[in-house]
Amino acid sequence: MSSYSSSSASSNSPCAACKFLRRKCMQGCIFAPYFPPEEPQKFFNVHKIFGASNVTKLLNELLPHQREDAVNSLAYEADARMKDPVYGCVGAISVLQQQVQLLQKELDAANANLLKYACSYCHPSAHAGHQQVLLPYHSSLQWSNNSDNEQMREKGGYVYGDVDGS
Amino acid sequence: MSSYSSSSASSNSPCAACKFLRRKCMQGCIFAPYFPPEEPQKFFNVHKIFGASNVTKLLNELLPHQREDAVNSLAYEADARMKDPVYGCVGAISVLQQQVQLLQKELDAANANLLKYACSYCHPSAHAGHQQVLLPYHSSLQWSNNSDNEQMREKGGYVYGDVDGS
Repeated sequence: MSSYSSSSASSNSPCAACKFLRRKCMQGCIFAPYFPPEEPQKFFNVHKIFGASNVTKLLNELLPHQREDAVNSLAYEADARMKDPVYGCVGAISVLQQQVQLLQKELDAANANLLKYACSYCHPSAHAGHQQVLLPYHSSLQWSNNSDNEQMREKGGYVYGDVDGS
Repeated sequence: MSSYSSSSASSNSPCAACKFLRRKCMQGCIFAPYFPPEEPQKFFNVHKIFGASNVTKLLNELLPHQREDAVNSLAYEADARMKDPVYGCVGAISVLQQQVQLLQKELDAANANLLKYACSYCHPSAHAGHQQVLLPYHSSLQWSNNSDNEQMREKGGYVYGDVDGS
């Protein structure tokens, strides 16, 4: 985290927010520690998606030590919304939820097969005639990417679960 | 999707957006199909987090058939940010990414064990003395929930990957 004492507001260079908003970057500027002048795109995205006024209100409602994480998560969401104006980062959530479901299903199947082998070791006579080899699953999962989002879009959108899983 | 012809703007009741903003809900109101008067919280959240002006701009940049998905994903993000002002739905992304990594690790281990059993069936003499039973993994994973977010917060925040996995 950039400490405020070393932030742009203490130098002659205004922070990226004040520079974009064409205002003087005063001592105590709430944006200065999180929007350094060398990252103009970060503020541009956050301002375009959330609005500087809303971000100011949100930061003022948080404790100082929470603000950097809040700004970074807002920047992440804003970047995702700029890249995908329809789904934003919710597209990534939907893809990840499907990956978890598929992996859990594959793991359950692998465990069921392992149990069969384990039982046949413990009671070899019960499986004396068993010759079928249950080969491991090989997950075909890839990390979420834009092509996943495109595929999802073609299918007619996402089904969103609650964030807290309830 | 609510068709515009059946939206609130065609009745005497203004849509939730126009009602909140205290303005007349005109024919062609861009909010009316997606913010029915019976769901005031949906607009309240979206307006508080993104601002009505930013949402209007975003919707105007999309094709009409994309707008319902866009509004729903914005509502999802806004709801997550209201519940968790620091991380919003990015917290859920981080938890899901960790679940995927852990599940993949467990699946790889289960598959490796399956391969050992499969080999010992094909070549029983090679493992004649092998009596160790490799029990299946039992995933301890739970779907993301607020307690996960709390744990993450205690660890000092999330590490975010790019949305597109790059």
